[in-house]
Amino acid sequence: MRLVTISDIEAAAATFGDAVLHTPLLPWRDGRLWLKPECLQPIGAFKIRGAYNALSLVPADVRARGVVAYSSGNHAQAVAYVAKLFGVPATIVVPDNTPQVKIDATRSHGAVVKLVPMAQRESAAEAIAAAEGLTLIPPFDHRDVIAGQGTIGLEIVADMPDVEVVVVPISGGGLISGIGTAVKALRPSVRVIGVEPELASETSIGFRSKTLVHWSADDRARTVADALRGQPSELTFAHILSVVDDVVTVSEEEMLDTVGLLARRSRLVAEPGGAAAVAAYLNRGLPEGKTVAVVSGGNIDPALLARVLAG
Amino acid sequence: MRLVTISDIEAAAATFGDAVLHTPLLPWRDGRLWLKPECLQPIGAFKIRGAYNALSLVPADVRARGVVAYSSGNHAQAVAYVAKLFGVPATIVVPDNTPQVKIDATRSHGAVVKLVPMAQRESAAEAIAAAEGLTLIPPFDHRDVIAGQGTIGLEIVADMPDVEVVVVPISGGGLISGIGTAVKALRPSVRVIGVEPELASETSIGFRSKTLVHWSADDRARTVADALRGQPSELTFAHILSVVDDVVTVSEEEMLDTVGLLARRSRLVAEPGGAAAVAAYLNRGLPEGKTVAVVSGGNIDPALLARVLAG
Repeated sequence: MRLVTISDIEAAAATFGDAVLHTPLLPWRDGRLWLKPECLQPIGAFKIRGAYNALSLVPADVRARGVVAYSSGNHAQAVAYVAKLFGVPATIVVPDNTPQVKIDATRSHGAVVKLVPMAQRESAAEAIAAAEGLTLIPPFDHRDVIAGQGTIGLEIVADMPDVEVVVVPISGGGLISGIGTAVKALRPSVRVIGVEPELASETSIGFRSKTLVHWSADDRARTVADALRGQPSELTFAHILSVVDDVVTVSEEEMLDTVGLLARRSRLVAEPGGAAAVAAYLNRGLPEGKTVAVVSGGNIDPALLARVLAG
Repeated sequence: MRLVTISDIEAAAATFGDAVLHTPLLPWRDGRLWLKPECLQPIGAFKIRGAYNALSLVPADVRARGVVAYSSGNHAQAVAYVAKLFGVPATIVVPDNTPQVKIDATRSHGAVVKLVPMAQRESAAEAIAAAEGLTLIPPFDHRDVIAGQGTIGLEIVADMPDVEVVVVPISGGGLISGIGTAVKALRPSVRVIGVEPELASETSIGFRSKTLVHWSADDRARTVADALRGQPSELTFAHILSVVDDVVTVSEEEMLDTVGLLARRSRLVAEPGGAAAVAAYLNRGLPEGKTVAVVSGGNIDPALLARVLAG
């Protein structure tokens, strides 16, 4: 299996122009942690990076027929947004338990949204792609998507050359596959730590046995972190075994408490999965050293954020 | 009266090192507005810029005796935070109607906090400075503070050379004095627009008559935007007449609605005064063209933000 390389990631960064924000590193008050706030991207999550790179690498005449994606939410918005930038139509297949805020945001970018049961989203998207001649942009199981997410690792090393630990949420694993590949290529001694919700922790178990572990979609749907309900593919799991040093888990309460802390102390709106890496830093014994935690997304239901803040 | 120059502002920028964040420009969804999110600074507001520059220009042996400041909140946190960076003691005089979140944050930086009635804050700070041999760092009525705030203007022009309109909240006027000076020096054709709450709009009235207008502290305290309850000094008003094209007002509801929009659409926590410039862009007929609105601070009471989001 060919893994993504640092060259793939550098090529992805070169395509972005103004479409993707080079997010700053925000110091946490302890002087040891910095946040990489991907929630500030135009669609509120890092997914814009992989979607942009994937669409940019589809031949223009094929891309013009349109693209289709399936997603628990943030990838949906990313493909819809990027398709609009490229001027091509987008169809997004979304599980029917997706928060309304994410469905509305996807439609606001001009995409056609189709709701299906969680377990059918991938097959439904493949059927639409085949029937209508559209290009499928997978949420993580694709080298071009992984390379796009890896640009976060380039930015971290460029902005903090002496970084020692990088903490990244894991769902399908595309984000940590890309970041880990970039960081390990440029700074082999950096420790790359993955974070999962306890209620969707198949990767932390699989990581220890070096075997891909599957949990049912229903089991993974228990976590409030709707962005972290995916599970790795063979491609992303191979990257994880290659570039990740450890995978830890956080509780539902730890993620929600961290959502509140990020709003109060860092003035960032994060969704529960977006807060998972910071939650791990605050609650687990991670390796010592200058640490960057990726705040991967901020598309939280406003009513949930209100409840967290009202405490 | 000697006004601040672009050289003063460039000198301020050169002192910052890693202490001040170069905030990114975040695109709003309409393709015509960008946010300058100063709420992401370490203390949650732009005030760190002026405080840092002012302290850096105090001779080291004088600075070592300590500094004192009076403030409705964000300047208090800024001086406390910057004093800690310089390793000198700080005493902060705070009006007794300041939100608890700002008092707690100021104490968390190691400062001694003294609560006094709103009308006595300036005289109390001057008395402490005289009695204890401390250096007073005013919140806005000081060239070094204005020059520090002006670095925001440098960053806006560097990151968006073709900017056409810059929108800035006005309280004591230090922020718009500095930004306007920088922007007009580098791009004379840019329109600089000030924004005040209707309930503390003495500057918009004074701007039309070219005369400094005073409202009572009690009148200005009516607005929910506690960061915008100040009023210009002769020094800042002279800058405003020199570098500002217009001053507009926003209602309480417009600011609070915009706090909610910024959280939902831009994943930023803004305080009501911090949202005033965006509120003006959304609700007033500002000049056409590529616009940057400064989101000046994010130290909102979490319970108020919860109410806005649940609203």
